[in-house]
Amino acid sequence: MTDIKVLRLDRADHVRNDPSLLAAAASDGAIFLLLDGLTPRFDAAGRIAWSRLSNAPADAERVFLGMDGGRGCFALIPQTSDGASMRSVRDLAGQLDAGDFSAYSMARSLLDWHVRQRFCSRCGFTTTVAKGGWQRNCANSKCAAVHYPRTDPVVIMTVEWAGEGGEPQLLLGRQAGFPPGMYSALAGFVEPGETIEAAVAREVHEEAGLAVRDVRYISSQSWPFPSQLMIGCHAICDDGAITTNSDELEDARWFSRSQVSEAMLGNGPGPVSVPPTYAIAHWLIARWLAATGTCAPQ
Amino acid sequence: MTDIKVLRLDRADHVRNDPSLLAAAASDGAIFLLLDGLTPRFDAAGRIAWSRLSNAPADAERVFLGMDGGRGCFALIPQTSDGASMRSVRDLAGQLDAGDFSAYSMARSLLDWHVRQRFCSRCGFTTTVAKGGWQRNCANSKCAAVHYPRTDPVVIMTVEWAGEGGEPQLLLGRQAGFPPGMYSALAGFVEPGETIEAAVAREVHEEAGLAVRDVRYISSQSWPFPSQLMIGCHAICDDGAITTNSDELEDARWFSRSQVSEAMLGNGPGPVSVPPTYAIAHWLIARWLAATGTCAPQ
Ligand SMILES: [Zn+2]
Ligand SMILES: [Zn+2]
Repeated sequence: MTDIKVLRLDRADHVRNDPSLLAAAASDGAIFLLLDGLTPRFDAAGRIAWSRLSNAPADAERVFLGMDGGRGCFALIPQTSDGASMRSVRDLAGQLDAGDFSAYSMARSLLDWHVRQRFCSRCGFTTTVAKGGWQRNCANSKCAAVHYPRTDPVVIMTVEWAGEGGEPQLLLGRQAGFPPGMYSALAGFVEPGETIEAAVAREVHEEAGLAVRDVRYISSQSWPFPSQLMIGCHAICDDGAITTNSDELEDARWFSRSQVSEAMLGNGPGPVSVPPTYAIAHWLIARWLAATGTCAPQ
Repeated sequence: MTDIKVLRLDRADHVRNDPSLLAAAASDGAIFLLLDGLTPRFDAAGRIAWSRLSNAPADAERVFLGMDGGRGCFALIPQTSDGASMRSVRDLAGQLDAGDFSAYSMARSLLDWHVRQRFCSRCGFTTTVAKGGWQRNCANSKCAAVHYPRTDPVVIMTVEWAGEGGEPQLLLGRQAGFPPGMYSALAGFVEPGETIEAAVAREVHEEAGLAVRDVRYISSQSWPFPSQLMIGCHAICDDGAITTNSDELEDARWFSRSQVSEAMLGNGPGPVSVPPTYAIAHWLIARWLAATGTCAPQ
């Protein structure tokens, strides 16, 4: 473990497709991310740790993460992706700076995909690494299927209701696995055949029995556990009668601005909290709070 | 082949997880989509054709598409997903009404996924259908991996440049495989570790050598060939010096409003055209044309 720092990781996609550029990227000065399974090691400064690629086992399969200035950055494909708990995931996300989290996110998603794609899902043969680790090819010449890393789109949404007393209310729910007292924005995978807007409407209806309109995109986040594209949206609900789907949620309810505000500050009367700042849910909730407190257009 | 019409297909996700509801959905009145491989058959009215599920082979593996009123709607998993050309895809998309295209899209994506997921990508064993066709389970009890349908997020974007003469310009490119003269919005898959906004910036830089700012989401579309979530965006470029990446595009250039307008009407002086109305690219281009011609906020 050294004190190598990656300043700016450029994906440099063109390198993946060019064997000579890829070989050059792996030569002098190249580095690789130090991991135990999928868990990063840290240097003395608390940043993710890298080592010289010349220190890696000669037979290690690797993926090309990108270029940091003139040097290639790599990660080694582990034997298994098991072992990392959601708890350590939460710790990690809160602990890493934005650049490190982005580099680690990409590496983690890719490596996890490699472990899950060692075999061809079409014919069952083994697959081999290609294109600097951004592709795996079926080794069965009769099949020759090409496999690409997977990214699953997920919608996550703040839902607003005018409320019976005219005070705006925010829909939040909790899953059984959440930390005690934590409520968050509802979320779910976009399914085949759906638009973003249709997925938002379906999820809110499925989980809370509510109809929504005017779905609006707010922002997105990459979430590498294992490989989600979080698509943050906002929607309006006209009838606030919730029917919680107990298969999906332990509870879903409306929160006033002051309740949300206190939950965010951790000052609520009860043990209600919202997700921490590294989660897109936090920012969606904070945005709602800011927007409903001003004349900003919703 | 009968004249069964599906009025409104409700995905009814809760049915997938409940074996007794699923069995009920497959009983009296249930129907299935008539396909040759992945290509739909049509009824006399030009709508996608369905048949009674009681007419299906008893050993056919099926997926639950949803409920149409009180009857379950299914599709049968084919042996292969080969054979459908992009040409017939284009014809289909232009031919089907919105409800039929949506139902067919979902079925096609799901069935194609089943054919590509007959084996466990983690251990190479066979997989079996579960949850009404919305899941496949590894049959190897030591692995027991669970596989879900795949949906790949793709960004597609209009890029605007103020132009040297102050007349707004739109970036369009053509791939070698496009019909002669067709130009379209640039597009590409969202990669692991990326946000929507970062993917837009990377793709425009990779394909045309341009830096963009102020990426804005416009709208989304499901594209079932095989299973893409098209995420339509708009972005601004300050320096219009294009460097076309010949690995990705045959050409990329700036078009004025009048050039785009004429291409959309098919009246251009040259053989320049834009994608047809069923493609999200068409609507993104049309939106740009409308927005730049008025005082509407960009
Ligand atoms: Zn294969
Ligand atoms: Zn398996």
